[in-house]
Formats: sequence, structure tokens, C-alpha cells
Amino acid sequence: MAVSKDVVITKVWEDRLEELEDSVVVEYPLTIFINDQEFITLLCSPEALEYLVVGFLASEGLIKDNKQIKRLSVDEEKGHAFVELSGFSTFSDKLFGKRTVTTGCGKGTVFYNVLDSLTANVSEGGMTITQEDIFRLTKEFNQSSETFKDTGGVHSCCLCDAEGILIFHEDIGRHNALDKLIGEAIQKGIALDDKLLLTSGRISSEMIIKASKQNIPIMISRSAATELSIKIAQELNVTLIGFARGRRMNIYNGKNRVLFSNE
Amino acid sequence: MAVSKDVVITKVWEDRLEELEDSVVVEYPLTIFINDQEFITLLCSPEALEYLVVGFLASEGLIKDNKQIKRLSVDEEKGHAFVELSGFSTFSDKLFGKRTVTTGCGKGTVFYNVLDSLTANVSEGGMTITQEDIFRLTKEFNQSSETFKDTGGVHSCCLCDAEGILIFHEDIGRHNALDKLIGEAIQKGIALDDKLLLTSGRISSEMIIKASKQNIPIMISRSAATELSIKIAQELNVTLIGFARGRRMNIYNGKNRVLFSNE
Repeated sequence: MAVSKDVVITKVWEDRLEELEDSVVVEYPLTIFINDQEFITLLCSPEALEYLVVGFLASEGLIKDNKQIKRLSVDEEKGHAFVELSGFSTFSDKLFGKRTVTTGCGKGTVFYNVLDSLTANVSEGGMTITQEDIFRLTKEFNQSSETFKDTGGVHSCCLCDAEGILIFHEDIGRHNALDKLIGEAIQKGIALDDKLLLTSGRISSEMIIKASKQNIPIMISRSAATELSIKIAQELNVTLIGFARGRRMNIYNGKNRVLFSNE
Repeated sequence: MAVSKDVVITKVWEDRLEELEDSVVVEYPLTIFINDQEFITLLCSPEALEYLVVGFLASEGLIKDNKQIKRLSVDEEKGHAFVELSGFSTFSDKLFGKRTVTTGCGKGTVFYNVLDSLTANVSEGGMTITQEDIFRLTKEFNQSSETFKDTGGVHSCCLCDAEGILIFHEDIGRHNALDKLIGEAIQKGIALDDKLLLTSGRISSEMIIKASKQNIPIMISRSAATELSIKIAQELNVTLIGFARGRRMNIYNGKNRVLFSNE
């Protein structure tokens, strides 16, 4: 399905009015049914929907690997995804979206969700990347986002190694873009614990928790990082970098993984 | 509580490294309890929390007016908000977040949530605004957002009449900023059906549905609007404007409410 559509708009510029066709980003509701029960409706860009479903299930801790998915089908026209899971835990279902009210889950107090505190991983990765590679990958990433240039309405993210971009996804939602990336990596059996993640959107606690659950050791954004995401990065030993633009960046945590040009 | 904090970061620029203090935006988990039951955890900027709770309850269709709130208290330190509601419907609770799978709710097929299709209103407002007022208000709005300039991490929105800005809020989430605005209007008894709404963030279906539930007739963004939000604007007779920057804007729907300079 198309991720953007032409619609007739009225463009105003000073005292000029013009009716013309302009490209706007499509927003598509996808309702996920797990074992025949309606689970959630995601608002997303209508592409890579299977990857989105797999990534969403992994991010929410509902699956650990691809083998748990016995069946997965998407009805694009209706906007329905049907998943059959083995070992689907009603425990997970009941705790979905619920906060840790009690503390003491073993990972400090920066987590607000009991499942997250149990499933996010401390990164052990000894992976390193040079400063020049970061600058080069950031540039390549910025050049890859075509829908954004076209409509101004989507976020993108990509998975890289030092050589280049391995997986790239766009979506109207930052979270969906990352879930699509995670879903593709899981379905293709691509390891995540020795890769870096680039995202156009702000890094919030939810974004870094999502990445940490998949053991991604380095997370880089063109935008800001929140204070809570920095605390979580410290606790989970994730390298967190923001405002990576041109030949600048802000390193919020884990600079031991970055090899600087002047060292 | 502070909405931003200074943290020590490593700033990299070409081959220079510098350790310095930089301001980052605070992300704060607020868990809302309704009638002693945990309902949801919002990730937000820690200010105007009572307005946020009231606006959230109104946006989700859980209250119609301020009178239904028998008690509201916020424990800032713990991040808990306790609300006692009269007439809290378990019907609403059960449908929370659920999609309309059946159609025919009387408002076409653009709605994906049964509660939204029942509670979003067709705007009757005969309100008009001049093109010059829009350009002036947009400029005033852009100048008002201080936290964004400081940290690059928040969205802002404001409620205006033709004279100027009446309510202004910022938050790390677009939705929260709008909920704070709606909450303040409800608590102060400010009518919304003859006002316009300005927002820094993208207008998605959820944003326009939120505004329509409060009968706001004109919605203007500095950013893009999605195709689904345009369809909903058409169905609900809402004036929808995007990319309002400088002396330009894109009118997606309802230009009958805009008085142009050359007419």
C-alpha cells in the first residue's frame, strides 16, 4: 500500500492562494489479534506490516523468538493482523501497560513497568565504533529518508554495522519504525547485540527500553534524548548519543564504545 | 518540578571533545488511578499534572465535565494521580483502546475506535479568523516555546482567540500538551467551540479526534497532517491547516472559516 497520497490542498503564501495537489503521509490503523483475541490497534505507515507485528510482539515481551509464532497473516484491506502464538502468557497480557508500583525488581527504580524491568538487558557488548564511522553512517542515514523529504511526516530508523546500513524503516511513529526494524532482524536471524541503531526521532525511555530488550549496545539520534532515557542507558550500559548532525554529536553515556580521531 | 535538568555530557565537534553541562528534558511517569484502580501510566513533562489528568479523562471520554470529578490529588514525588469519578462507566473501561470492528456507527468508516465515533462531534462553529490573525498568532506561538529552544525535546500547543493566546502548554508528548490545554479549559470553564488550536507537532487522527471531542473548530500545525486526519476533518467539518510557518500555510480542509486578505 502507498505510504503517502496526493490530496488537493489550498496553499497560502503571502496574499496568494493556490489549489494544488500535495503529497500527505498515510496513517493506517492495524489491529492485531493474538490467538483470536483483539489485542491492540497500532496507527502506522502501511508497509512492512509483518515486520511491525513481529517487532511489536518482541518489544512487548510477548515473544522471545520467531519460533513462538505459529501463524501470522495480514489482511491489508481490512487492517487486521492475525497471530497465533505458542506459549502466549496471560500473565503478560494482564500486565500489559501496567506500572511497577512495588520497587525492588533488581534493576533500580528507573523502570516504571514491571515487565520492562524484568526483560531489558544490561548490555555486555564490547563493540566499538570510530567517530568517523558515526559521522559517515549518520550522513548516509539522513540521505536515505525519502518519505520524510516528500511529506514531512515520518520518522526513520536504521540498523548498521561499521560498514553501512543493514536495515532501514520509516513510519509515522518512532516506535513503529523501530519495531519494524526489530521484526525484520528477528525474521532474518540478524544478530542485534553487535550493531548500532540510528533514529531520526527523540530518544525516550520507551525507545531505549525497546532497544535494550534486543541487546542493541549503541543508540544514536538526530534529535534529543530525555533525562530518563539517559538514566536507563547508564543502568543498562548502553551507549547513548543525541543531536548527531553533520560532524557534531552529544554523547550522553557509554563513550568507551566510541574510538575518537584524536586518541 | 523541573521540566529540564542539567547533566554532564561529552560534546563532540570535529576532533574536539568537551565535557560540559547541558540541559536535557525530563521524562516523568505519572500513573493514574481511577476509583482506586490503576488505569494507565503517562510519560510526560512534570508540570500542570492536574490539568493533564483532567484533559486525559475528557479526551478518553471518561468524563463529560468537571462535576464528575469528586476528588483529584497528585503525589508528585511518587508519580501517582488519584481520581474519584462519579458515573465511571465500566463500559468505557472495557472498550478503552479497542477498535471498531463493526462499522455503521453513523460517522462513516474513518474511525477506528468505537468510543471515538460516538463522542467526536461535527463542528457547527460559524467562527471565522483572518489570514493575518493566523500569521500573527503563529508567530506569537513560535516565540512562546522556551523549553523547546532550550532542550529541543518538547512539543507545545496553545488555545487562541483572534486577540491572542489564552492557554499555552508544553510537554514531551504532543498528546499530553493538548490534554493539559483541554484540562485547563475544562477546569476554568473556558469555552472551546469558538477558539483555535495551534500545535507544534504533527496532526494525526488521534490529535484531531481529541480536539473534535471538545468541539474546537480550527486546528493549525507548524508540521504535517496525516491523510487520515484530513479525512476526519472533512467528516467533522473541522478547519485543518498544516505547515503554518512565516507567512505560509497549507489548508487541508474548511477554508470557509479563513478570511483571506485579497477577498
